Amino acid sequence: MKTRRTQNIVTVALACMVFLMTTNARAVDPLASWNDGPAKQFIVEFVAKVTKEGSPDFARPEERIATFDNDGTLWCEQPMYFQLLFALDRIKALAPKHPEWKTTEPFASLLKGDLKTVLAGGERTMLEIIIVTHAGMTTAEFEQIVKEWITTAKHPKFKRPYTECVYQPMIELLAYLRANGFKTFIVSGGGIEFMRPWTEKVYGIPPEQVVGSSIKTKYEWRDGKPVLMRLPEMNFIDDKTGKPVGINSHIGRRPIAAFGNSDGDQQMLEWTQAGSGARLMMLVHHDDAVREFAYGAESKIGTFSDALMAEAKKNDWAVISMKNDWKVIFPFESK
Amino acid sequence: MKTRRTQNIVTVALACMVFLMTTNARAVDPLASWNDGPAKQFIVEFVAKVTKEGSPDFARPEERIATFDNDGTLWCEQPMYFQLLFALDRIKALAPKHPEWKTTEPFASLLKGDLKTVLAGGERTMLEIIIVTHAGMTTAEFEQIVKEWITTAKHPKFKRPYTECVYQPMIELLAYLRANGFKTFIVSGGGIEFMRPWTEKVYGIPPEQVVGSSIKTKYEWRDGKPVLMRLPEMNFIDDKTGKPVGINSHIGRRPIAAFGNSDGDQQMLEWTQAGSGARLMMLVHHDDAVREFAYGAESKIGTFSDALMAEAKKNDWAVISMKNDWKVIFPFESK
Repeated sequence: MKTRRTQNIVTVALACMVFLMTTNARAVDPLASWNDGPAKQFIVEFVAKVTKEGSPDFARPEERIATFDNDGTLWCEQPMYFQLLFALDRIKALAPKHPEWKTTEPFASLLKGDLKTVLAGGERTMLEIIIVTHAGMTTAEFEQIVKEWITTAKHPKFKRPYTECVYQPMIELLAYLRANGFKTFIVSGGGIEFMRPWTEKVYGIPPEQVVGSSIKTKYEWRDGKPVLMRLPEMNFIDDKTGKPVGINSHIGRRPIAAFGNSDGDQQMLEWTQAGSGARLMMLVHHDDAVREFAYGAESKIGTFSDALMAEAKKNDWAVISMKNDWKVIFPFESK
Repeated sequence: MKTRRTQNIVTVALACMVFLMTTNARAVDPLASWNDGPAKQFIVEFVAKVTKEGSPDFARPEERIATFDNDGTLWCEQPMYFQLLFALDRIKALAPKHPEWKTTEPFASLLKGDLKTVLAGGERTMLEIIIVTHAGMTTAEFEQIVKEWITTAKHPKFKRPYTECVYQPMIELLAYLRANGFKTFIVSGGGIEFMRPWTEKVYGIPPEQVVGSSIKTKYEWRDGKPVLMRLPEMNFIDDKTGKPVGINSHIGRRPIAAFGNSDGDQQMLEWTQAGSGARLMMLVHHDDAVREFAYGAESKIGTFSDALMAEAKKNDWAVISMKNDWKVIFPFESK
């Protein structure tokens, strides 16, 4: 009788435990903003494989490097790259000191709001804008300018600070990977010093894990203090074939997981895939015109060409449909 | 009576705890190879200050960045930079495929063992040697070559692998800082890809925390696989004014502690000191001709000039005397 009773108690206790554990697991799904579907499954299965000791796909914690593009992968990139919107705001702010801009291109068109003419200028025009807005100051001064802009400027469509126009499912993915021993890196075509002032707070990614494009800097003394001056000269473009170069230079290890959204990310995914062992390559596809923007091969920003889609199919890269795979896109939607 | 007894028990128990704690503390002095003296005291007091919550000098863990020069600071740099010895070994290994080297400088002198002529050639000669020995292969191939050399080659004086010719007190310092929440980085004039294959094992510093000089690399496809080709062109020289530039590029944060040993480290220490809050700047002085090497202003390698010594005094940078501050220099001494 006593034994039976003990058994009963044990059975009830076990049932309670299982109930509590499953309820708890449901309550804290680390990828709660992802719909159950192939994309989520890809991620969860990959993480299970590489973190299971003894598994042939096991990766030691120091090998768990995951790289993320930023524009269009972690945060929105429409109606144009946010860094370009930052540059335009800078030009407006600096215009009173530059009366000559009223009659000099690309500034004249810019100040009139004629972005079409500006964008038609191509790379050379972009470089002129970058030099005027990103150089000729110290790194500390530039950091301060970025910090002020990022806390005050608002997205033209969503009327929210740009740091709120980030993808909630990707924020969850970053945290989920880190909880599983991954080190998460940004590898973006955007400016490295434009991102670093806010990536730690917004993504949990510290400055030393941000890789990006850069201009040259020079060490010198100014007013009795050493400074790094930002020079009007490109140093490195972290896009397309530049991404594996930037990864090698900054990380010195090949990632085992890489996430992008455009033609600029193809080489990063190729480089990631070419290593041995289990790999995860994913591309965010902007196919949700209602909740965000829908664009692809025709886009001037964040182009997801038909050739990239063909590469994804050929190489078994998972394509994330924002429309179908994401329950929520922005953090502010869920509030 | 009962109270008195309880008090006695408590007193004895406390005495035992204090005894055990102090014995334990003595047994595991994290800086056991450092003599008690001003250098050790500087380190311990600095770490106590920046890790004490509520202290005006408290630094949040993410701000605890410590940078270390490598040659002459973490490992030996005499009779010449180990990377140069690596390059010489490579030239000897490649010579059979290059009969023309018998009559071409600097290779002819090199192969005859006439290093004086080679070193007299200066920077241009060095660049020629680097291009022949460090470029024209993939990053993976170069990594393999370094790994093979580092496990087989031996130091001419100490007859030990180069990775054993590291400074035991500095290995302890690295571990001590990490145990106190610091992230430790190498910032060296040496080649970034020459160091990364072994720094994790030897210093506990992963590849992504190694900053160094580099040549350019190019992403391309070879035999159906993507590779990074090492090009015969300098990319970045991480020495003198280059060190703050390299720190800013790779770490994106100012260190709060920096360690060097030569004129090449002055700007890194200046840059570290110029931040706000508590700072630790130290220079290793090679003054132990018996156990290692003694050299200073007159040296061609790792020059510690009189001007640097004056800077150290002016700025309150601590100078570590290898002779007086270090009980042991190399790990193999203590075995």
